[in-house]
Amino acid sequence: MTSESLEPNRRRGRARSSGSETRLPDQKPFKQPRMRYAPTKVLSDDELESIHLASLKILSDYGMDFLDPDARELMKKSGAKIEDQRVRFDPEMVLETIKTCPSEFKLHARNPAHTLNIGGDWMAFGSVASTPNFIGLDGVRHAGTRKDFQELLKLSQVFNIIHFNSGYPVEPVDLHASIRHIETTFDLLTMTDKAIHCYSLGRQRNRDVLEMCRIARQVDDETLDREPSVFSIINSSSPLRLDTPMLQGIMEFSSRNQIIIITPFTLAGAMAPITLAGALAQQNAEALAGMVFTQVVRPGAPVAYGGFTSNVDMQSGAPAFGTPEYMRTAMAGGQLARRYKVPYRSSNVCAANALDAQAAYESVFSLWGAVQGGVNFVMHGAGWMEGGLHSSLEKFILDVDLMSMVAAYLEPIVVDEATLAHEAIGQVGPGGHFFGVQHTQDRFRDAFFKPMISDWRNYESWQEGGSPTAVTKTKELAQTWLAAYRTPEIDEKALAELKAFVSRRVSEGGVATDF
Amino acid sequence: MTSESLEPNRRRGRARSSGSETRLPDQKPFKQPRMRYAPTKVLSDDELESIHLASLKILSDYGMDFLDPDARELMKKSGAKIEDQRVRFDPEMVLETIKTCPSEFKLHARNPAHTLNIGGDWMAFGSVASTPNFIGLDGVRHAGTRKDFQELLKLSQVFNIIHFNSGYPVEPVDLHASIRHIETTFDLLTMTDKAIHCYSLGRQRNRDVLEMCRIARQVDDETLDREPSVFSIINSSSPLRLDTPMLQGIMEFSSRNQIIIITPFTLAGAMAPITLAGALAQQNAEALAGMVFTQVVRPGAPVAYGGFTSNVDMQSGAPAFGTPEYMRTAMAGGQLARRYKVPYRSSNVCAANALDAQAAYESVFSLWGAVQGGVNFVMHGAGWMEGGLHSSLEKFILDVDLMSMVAAYLEPIVVDEATLAHEAIGQVGPGGHFFGVQHTQDRFRDAFFKPMISDWRNYESWQEGGSPTAVTKTKELAQTWLAAYRTPEIDEKALAELKAFVSRRVSEGGVATDF
Repeated sequence: MTSESLEPNRRRGRARSSGSETRLPDQKPFKQPRMRYAPTKVLSDDELESIHLASLKILSDYGMDFLDPDARELMKKSGAKIEDQRVRFDPEMVLETIKTCPSEFKLHARNPAHTLNIGGDWMAFGSVASTPNFIGLDGVRHAGTRKDFQELLKLSQVFNIIHFNSGYPVEPVDLHASIRHIETTFDLLTMTDKAIHCYSLGRQRNRDVLEMCRIARQVDDETLDREPSVFSIINSSSPLRLDTPMLQGIMEFSSRNQIIIITPFTLAGAMAPITLAGALAQQNAEALAGMVFTQVVRPGAPVAYGGFTSNVDMQSGAPAFGTPEYMRTAMAGGQLARRYKVPYRSSNVCAANALDAQAAYESVFSLWGAVQGGVNFVMHGAGWMEGGLHSSLEKFILDVDLMSMVAAYLEPIVVDEATLAHEAIGQVGPGGHFFGVQHTQDRFRDAFFKPMISDWRNYESWQEGGSPTAVTKTKELAQTWLAAYRTPEIDEKALAELKAFVSRRVSEGGVATDF
Repeated sequence: MTSESLEPNRRRGRARSSGSETRLPDQKPFKQPRMRYAPTKVLSDDELESIHLASLKILSDYGMDFLDPDARELMKKSGAKIEDQRVRFDPEMVLETIKTCPSEFKLHARNPAHTLNIGGDWMAFGSVASTPNFIGLDGVRHAGTRKDFQELLKLSQVFNIIHFNSGYPVEPVDLHASIRHIETTFDLLTMTDKAIHCYSLGRQRNRDVLEMCRIARQVDDETLDREPSVFSIINSSSPLRLDTPMLQGIMEFSSRNQIIIITPFTLAGAMAPITLAGALAQQNAEALAGMVFTQVVRPGAPVAYGGFTSNVDMQSGAPAFGTPEYMRTAMAGGQLARRYKVPYRSSNVCAANALDAQAAYESVFSLWGAVQGGVNFVMHGAGWMEGGLHSSLEKFILDVDLMSMVAAYLEPIVVDEATLAHEAIGQVGPGGHFFGVQHTQDRFRDAFFKPMISDWRNYESWQEGGSPTAVTKTKELAQTWLAAYRTPEIDEKALAELKAFVSRRVSEGGVATDF
């Protein structure tokens, strides 16, 4: 399927086609979970303040390298001290400038039903992003292609627990880098109707993607300017550096009121101090610098605080995820983001090579860190393996189940007269059982979360069934759900304009790739 | 190995033997984790109060069946209303009686270094207990034997993260029921030097086990009476019933100031209402009734509140663990226990048949519920599979790693001048790396938690290594650590007296098994 041959089936939206979907497991409707419990504080208020102050001192003593001259010029006008590429920040300026960061905003999807609230107690879960490799149902790891990319998009679209596209769910290296952003954004906007990400890899790419979002939503520039419709992850090149495409991405998007998520890549022991407090201080310094720059570009521009601090295996240098260090820094990151009253981004990550117990426990520990850390925006929610070096269809299925369980955990226990069940308890009495009573009968269908993967059969039945493991189940489920995918409805005019845009920009040769 | 042939190697305590242990992965010293973060409240204070009041109303309107006449007689003297087997509790009496429950106490092990603090912010992790079946390294599931039991004891002893023996890590059905408690307690007290559990299965068993604990500790009855040295899990036969052996267990142990852990077995939809609020109200009613009875037997007797509410698969009736329902009730149980200022018991449980992703995610979700619920006492910490129907050596290894990671997560982030690393950050500067700096060199050996199982090699090296999964690793590690087991040192007099006790009681025929 290429952008030219794509014919989204406009008459078979999921609501209307019931045939092949009746055999699918139930899923809950699209809905953002909310964090109704108090996030866990792994740092005392004093410790949090120490890290905050340490990061201000980093920014004022050492500063950050801003590799883009336009960005430095803007910072200079805002009173920062510039010396060569180095930008030093006065603490008061930092605190004053970030005051305009909004604490909550929307991320508009082309389907308004999939527009998201970012911030407050809202959570949103995204798919995997940015891996170079892919493992499909044949189990063979290979460099990602557009076909793999599209397989993953189908899963992102079909599952209601996936609230947005985190980026390219795998890098499609068979698309030339000059036009990759155009073709992929076409796929993202037509094969899914959920919110999308744009890689900041040079000003023109940001402009192309933003224009495609505008077309897909069929709104004018003024509306786009009021309604953030795309986000970009801005990774600092830790330690203490923001490179040109990242700075340009902020300039392009913040100036247009689009969403920037600043995420320092601070692996403790490698690109950041080996001590968690030091890694967090550096993470915070880099995040603050990025946040300041968004507000310098445009006060009030939407920006989120990303926490990605983890540790490396000090023997091999390999990055590790879902570790006890990761959990604590994920929670500490949430505390820092809330200190600055901005939304918080974390991730569902693991370092496992195989879809085994390790993949599961590292992912759940990551989610534990994110969720108890009060996360708003979960990147890499479904499908991430091997420290981000490959995406997996089967891991996608596993993660969908994990995130669905997290969402169910976040549903409050309803406490009222009916649920307290005083009458039913009396009816059953000592030594009885509750299967048969009306109180149970009225509720048994929807009382509990139903996982896709968990096999709760007794051992004998399970053995007779061939002793399937979670891997067997995820493979079957991936096939089932891929088959259930339907291209979402799209406005005909939007589709025609998108195609025309792709055609024109591709014929123009896309963008230069030698920046 | 029988109790007769056992010759604990008294001169090869772990501290002295270094030869074969040098190849073992590091482990941290024996140490109880502490909960330094605020537990998660899944219920508001009002909701908590509603559940509390609902449970008092259950106890006053319906009461509990106490199947033992002596227990009923004691309750009658304490002002409860008795009608046939039914005991009804006045709310004021409940609240007044439980006031004497201690909020913190010790569980003495025969090795004083393994004596535990129960309550407050202390945590203790136990091994698996009470499963009928076993899966060893051959992968074949079979009914438990003493040999299997002993294999599991070796792992319980060798790992420092296992703080106590939760019970029989598998039921050794080749030991006759009349003498099983004697032979197993001998094994528990000689093959490990950690605290032990006693099954309440008739008064004489409690007495035998308590006497063996006294002998092992070489203390007199008065000391035993001051120093709790054994615990018993008391499960109510939900709904609303306490059977004879359980009530006798409380009478035997509470009267001797030994530890009772009341754990209602309230599976929502089966033995308890299908609504979580109702299941919790019933759990709480049963827990309060048991707590009351301990204090009627002896005011001030140590007692803990056990939460075990989960849900069943409403299609098959199969119990489920580590579900979103389980997580929330685990946390709510902690809130209830803290309301009554008693220690809280929860578990590390799963329903998986295979050691796959399901086993891992259900266990980590269980631990998430327990830990964020402010658990003090974790039963079934290592080795539990299949909803408690089999113990697994490999799962034991996995759980040791999971619990070690939880313990590492609970270690506070140290925030001070050295860890904030201002100097090191300046030294490295923008674009540098931290591998080489002194700040890293001084700390790289112990900076991060080192898991046993997680494989962080790059994909190519991992493939060349045979693509091992976590299962491969756990199998190897089980062999390694079993080989590293050394019988802990034991006082010669204690050992001789224990042997004499076993010999005498076995020759007497143990206990009647037709109760």
